[in-house]
Formats: sequence, C-alpha cells, structure tokens
Amino acid sequence: MELREALYTTRAMRRVSDKPIPKDVQARILDAAVRAPSGGNAQNWRFLLVDDPAVKAQLGPIYRDCMDILWSSYYAERIAEAEADAESEDSKQFFRVKKSAQHLADHFEGYPLLLFAFSQHDPSGGSIYPAVWNAMLAARGEGVGSALTSAMLFKINDVLPVLGVPEGEGWHMSACVTFGYPTGKWGVAARTPVEDVSFQNHWGQPLDFKVDGPLFP
Amino acid sequence: MELREALYTTRAMRRVSDKPIPKDVQARILDAAVRAPSGGNAQNWRFLLVDDPAVKAQLGPIYRDCMDILWSSYYAERIAEAEADAESEDSKQFFRVKKSAQHLADHFEGYPLLLFAFSQHDPSGGSIYPAVWNAMLAARGEGVGSALTSAMLFKINDVLPVLGVPEGEGWHMSACVTFGYPTGKWGVAARTPVEDVSFQNHWGQPLDFKVDGPLFP
Repeated sequence: MELREALYTTRAMRRVSDKPIPKDVQARILDAAVRAPSGGNAQNWRFLLVDDPAVKAQLGPIYRDCMDILWSSYYAERIAEAEADAESEDSKQFFRVKKSAQHLADHFEGYPLLLFAFSQHDPSGGSIYPAVWNAMLAARGEGVGSALTSAMLFKINDVLPVLGVPEGEGWHMSACVTFGYPTGKWGVAARTPVEDVSFQNHWGQPLDFKVDGPLFP
Repeated sequence: MELREALYTTRAMRRVSDKPIPKDVQARILDAAVRAPSGGNAQNWRFLLVDDPAVKAQLGPIYRDCMDILWSSYYAERIAEAEADAESEDSKQFFRVKKSAQHLADHFEGYPLLLFAFSQHDPSGGSIYPAVWNAMLAARGEGVGSALTSAMLFKINDVLPVLGVPEGEGWHMSACVTFGYPTGKWGVAARTPVEDVSFQNHWGQPLDFKVDGPLFP
C-alpha cells in the first residue's frame, strides 16, 4: 500500500467481523510497531496481544463499565449540549462518534485481536504512541481495521490483574487497540482544515501557504 | 512510497542540510498530521511551524540549556555507567545516540523547519503523538528527515513566550520536530526483537508465533 493512502484512510474501524487475524499478519503488525522511535531509543515498551476468548470475556464487562464512567463524567456536559441542540451538524457528528464508541464496548468480546501497549518512564506518551500508531498503520496496509481506546484507564486496577501485569515495575498501560477485518469501507475522515489549527513562527500567525486538503487521493 | 518502507526507515535524522523545505511539501506534511485520530475525534491540537531565523536564534540557546539539564539529571547515571564500561556494545550504542542528540542541539538553528505540536486535555499523549508521527512519516515519503525531541519541556517557561503561546488555555507543548533533507542515508534501525517485548494473552507468556524481523525489505 502507498504511504499516503495509509496515512489518510487509517481511521477508527469499530465495525469488524470476527474473522481471525492470521499470525503472519500479526507478526508484521508487531514488527512495524517496534520500528517506532522512543526517547533515547530506550524501547521501554511491552506489547500484549489478546485473542483468548476467556481473557476477552473478563475484559468486556470492565470495558463497558469504563465507557459508562466516560459518558457520565468526562462527556456528561457534551452529551447534554448535544441533546439540547440535536439537529445541528456538530451534535449529529458527536452522536455518530458516541454510537461508534459504544458499539466497540457492546461488542468488545467480538474483536478477534486486542493489543495492549505498555510503557515505562514515559510521562508524555511520546515513546509509546508512535509505536501504537505504527501498529495501526501496518494493520491498515494488511486490510485490517483498528481502533484505539484509553477508556480502560478508568478501571485500570481491575484490568491489570486480568492481564497479569506486574506491580511495582512502573509499567503504565497506554492504550488498548482492537483489530478486525472491516465490514464497511475505508475512507478519508473529515478533519478541521490545516489552516484552522496551524500557525507560522508565532501563535496566531497564519501559515504563509495554502493547504487545500485533503491532499489525498 | 510504499507504507512498509516508510514505517521501517523513518528513523531520527539529525544530520541534515539547510536546504529549505518547499511549501507544497510542508502542506502535505501538515495535511497528513491532521488525519491522525484523537480521543472523541476532538482534534484539540495546534501545529506551529518555525522557519524564521530570528525565532530559531532565540530557541537554540534554550534548547542547548535543556540538553545540558537532560544529560546532567535524567541521564547522569546512564552516562556514568557507560563511561565505566566504555567498550561494551551497549555503551557504544548509547554514546552514538547521545552524540547524535547533542548534534541536534549544537546545530538547532541550522534546521530549515521546526514543528511544535500542542494539545489540550490530553494527559496520555494519545491524541497528539499519532499526528506528530504522521507528520514525520509523511516527511519521510517526501525524502525529508525528521527528529522528535521533548527536551524543551525542561525550560518550557522560556519557550512558550518565544512562540507566543497563550497562558491559561491549557495548551501543552507535546513535542518539537526538526525537519531537513538528510546528508546521510535512510536505513532500517536496529531494534530489540518483537519476541523480547511481546506477550500473548498474559504478561510473561510468549507469543504463539515467530517474528523473524526486521520484516522489511
């Protein structure tokens, strides 16, 4: 696959089939992950693949609890706003994202493969998220969809024992990624244009060039 | 460029020429950055490009101070260890990384383009580092090298006023990326093998498949 196609079409793919991910595909996903940079090239990371239904069965209810917490805390105000103005494009878009995120929770045990990424001594996330994103891009190149979620952090003390993560070694769970073959189509996600989120040389100063994106295809 | 070539050969490129990065290339780099995912698709990010020599001249000395702090604090013990065992492969590798990082500091004003990435409400980094890494991968596709550094956080209170970042809005500087056309060659970086950093279904349980990486070319 061409690089730009991957960069533009690797969007959250939460509607997937239960078709297993072949081992050679999993190997290419993980091997791409470890090519990412990390501070001082320390590679203080661990990657835990989960495909055992018994483990997923323990994690599913925890994840749904986490999503309940997410909606009723962090997103409570946003949900109230969107409900008060349900016909606006913004609200409709928000409810689409919310529905898709809830779909992931409701079908958690159905994803054929999960990846948990852990890091040590990485308060910024800069030494683990490039690796996580490499895994997701590599998956895209294999036709495998993925979605990243950090919501499990709400009940991390319930999650870590299920995965057997040792205590006292400083391992921080950064993300959970679900993988699966999409039931829908790949496409370029809409985004706020570059001009609206970019500056040149000083905060607030517009770019001195135009970006008529999306610049793919 | 093929996706896997980009994933495997986008390594820290700190030795670059002062040849400017064309505006259409900068546009493709930024437009790829905003395609990344963010929590709730909130896109709470800002990208600040710096190519003004006057701004770089203010930042260079601050960055070198930050690197002095980094070596004398976070890395002090590691440096002492490496000096005590200077002939080991580990120590040699460490000093190569250190020399390369110091090269970046010593030549900071010479990089033709800098990118500062900011995020709001993103304690994990999961909503900004995929975008930063997309920018670096897109640059690779254009033949432009890049290197990511967070060391400026040591003197962030000196950096933010230079860039004009507003106070009280919760903008967090996540990373600085240097860009430039490499004077050396692209290659696949050595990494700890996947088997040594990956588990299956439970922490400590080996993968149930082999990864004879690097799986590129």
